[in-house]
Amino acid sequence: MTRAHNFCAGPCTLPESVLQELADEMVEYGHSGMSVIEMSHRSADYEAIHFRTLELLRSLYTVPEEFDILLLQGGATLQFAMIPMNLAVAPQRAGYVLGGSWGRKAFADAVKVASAYPAWTAEGSTFTRMPAPREVTIEPDTAYLHVTSNETIEGTRMPDFEGFGARLVADMSSDYLSRPLDWSLFDLVYGGIQKNLGPAGLTVVFVRSALAATSPEHLPSYLRFDSHVASDSLFNTPPVFAVWAMGKVLAWMEASGGVPAMEKRAAERSGLVYDAIDSSGGFYRNPVDPGYRSHMNVVFRLPSPELEEEFLVLAEEERLLNLRGHRSVGGIRASIYSGLPTASVEALVSFMRHFAANRG
Amino acid sequence: MTRAHNFCAGPCTLPESVLQELADEMVEYGHSGMSVIEMSHRSADYEAIHFRTLELLRSLYTVPEEFDILLLQGGATLQFAMIPMNLAVAPQRAGYVLGGSWGRKAFADAVKVASAYPAWTAEGSTFTRMPAPREVTIEPDTAYLHVTSNETIEGTRMPDFEGFGARLVADMSSDYLSRPLDWSLFDLVYGGIQKNLGPAGLTVVFVRSALAATSPEHLPSYLRFDSHVASDSLFNTPPVFAVWAMGKVLAWMEASGGVPAMEKRAAERSGLVYDAIDSSGGFYRNPVDPGYRSHMNVVFRLPSPELEEEFLVLAEEERLLNLRGHRSVGGIRASIYSGLPTASVEALVSFMRHFAANRG
Repeated sequence: MTRAHNFCAGPCTLPESVLQELADEMVEYGHSGMSVIEMSHRSADYEAIHFRTLELLRSLYTVPEEFDILLLQGGATLQFAMIPMNLAVAPQRAGYVLGGSWGRKAFADAVKVASAYPAWTAEGSTFTRMPAPREVTIEPDTAYLHVTSNETIEGTRMPDFEGFGARLVADMSSDYLSRPLDWSLFDLVYGGIQKNLGPAGLTVVFVRSALAATSPEHLPSYLRFDSHVASDSLFNTPPVFAVWAMGKVLAWMEASGGVPAMEKRAAERSGLVYDAIDSSGGFYRNPVDPGYRSHMNVVFRLPSPELEEEFLVLAEEERLLNLRGHRSVGGIRASIYSGLPTASVEALVSFMRHFAANRG
Repeated sequence: MTRAHNFCAGPCTLPESVLQELADEMVEYGHSGMSVIEMSHRSADYEAIHFRTLELLRSLYTVPEEFDILLLQGGATLQFAMIPMNLAVAPQRAGYVLGGSWGRKAFADAVKVASAYPAWTAEGSTFTRMPAPREVTIEPDTAYLHVTSNETIEGTRMPDFEGFGARLVADMSSDYLSRPLDWSLFDLVYGGIQKNLGPAGLTVVFVRSALAATSPEHLPSYLRFDSHVASDSLFNTPPVFAVWAMGKVLAWMEASGGVPAMEKRAAERSGLVYDAIDSSGGFYRNPVDPGYRSHMNVVFRLPSPELEEEFLVLAEEERLLNLRGHRSVGGIRASIYSGLPTASVEALVSFMRHFAANRG
């Protein structure tokens, strides 16, 4: 086989060694006589995988003891509801930064279940940057300020998290474990794992234990953080395959230098693509304010929609796949998550330079 | 390798051919250059898997056109809340049959989010049978009667579903696709797939389209059936691996004769174990009223807890695994889901006869 260069925005490229291990162990795990996906989630073998995966999350992300780590289902989307249900209990409210498509979705769900207000919005303008702290309004009785650390569709990111005047709740689905965090700034960090950490079907939530220990009495069992805290995320049958696969990606990440190495790698690799854009004499254009450019999702336009289509067709012939921008914004998007080989980024940059030289 | 005889109550044994296919295709799917778990859920390859899996569910279970089929996350447990949120909207109420541990859990969540009442309860007595229709109380304004078709822990099942005086909502997690259904009796059928249909991490909901088309306005997006109906269960990133794996189990089921064959197989195989119990001269005892014995989970006791421990230890030496009864009830439980080879059931029965002959 020849691996494609897969720039998908998620689900997305995983380390090939992880896929190979999953293949090798799929029929029988160790000498257990069964597959991991056939095991009781109360068995010693599965529990070892489960708790080792939780330990890896804690050590790689340097998560302080005062945070619980939860493994849940339903994607970041279910968290859009669960988080305000659990943490923005009246009379408390929650502020939301509407910095892009995902921030807007989180807010739309929050207003259904809690008192939530827009603390900053780029709506009306285009989403080409995130707010500076002084632009964000924190109203009285604010439980938390919700931010989306990286907006996958618009290709923007928050360069840092300090000085916002409230503890943050952050959707980090699209830049999970790609930079070290100052945990004192956060109440909760969450995300689907299907970009940087594994296959689809699992959501990881880091939440301050003091906030998660007691949920409002009226919430049903799955939607209560306290159910999952009390049971070490074994409240009901967990998505065993996704936990197992994430454990392997995390082990790969640890062997590759951990989160500091992922941060350096992300800056360098996205930098290669931004350089190709910026040095193209205007042939490629990235609309994002330079201080807010995503290190995960590089978006760019060509001089015309026709050239963009030609770019995509020829790229596909070179096995450079899934470069089409989100249908809501168009253009080109290269998602460069942690599991993508650097050779794929180099192949893209080389293709971009050739294409611009021939068509520019 | 030697496959163990795995009688786990879920997750549980899958057809070995399915595991082998998953292993073979894990690194690269067809000539796509990537794994299924790396694909965009909007890609042609994944969509083909997704819609083929939905078609197989519909054809195998003979699901009428007036039902939608939803692929969700969060297990049956999240449905304990979502179903009443969507279908028991005031002034309507919902009746619940409390026939065992899972029926009680469903009810406990329903009362948090809707007006729900116990329509029959075995509480106070032991859970050794399900109600006859005349024993069930249907109150005015009842939207649905909730039943658990098979109680995994107590080893009971509802032998049929007719005559209850209200449309049924049924948790079929533990006997999914193991008997043909008269769909006219149901408004909704749901279950986690990790027993008869695949790995953990996916919930299948069959729901009347007329009921699922419009959810109450105040519900957040993931918790609304209408979100998932409108998007063919691609509202957010689906649990790709579990959908892919379930598709393979369903194809195996189709090739094995479909639901009628699964029903026959379940009756025969559980029958082998019940025969071993009933012909043991009282050495083994099954507490369930004979008309309500589960075809999926056979529970039994031995004359003493010491003998039960010895039984479990010696069984494990014969690679007969996961036979311990649920921690809440003790004893022995053999879960005989559709993917378990008949040879495993025969090995168990042979072991039971030898053990009884030596210790009885």
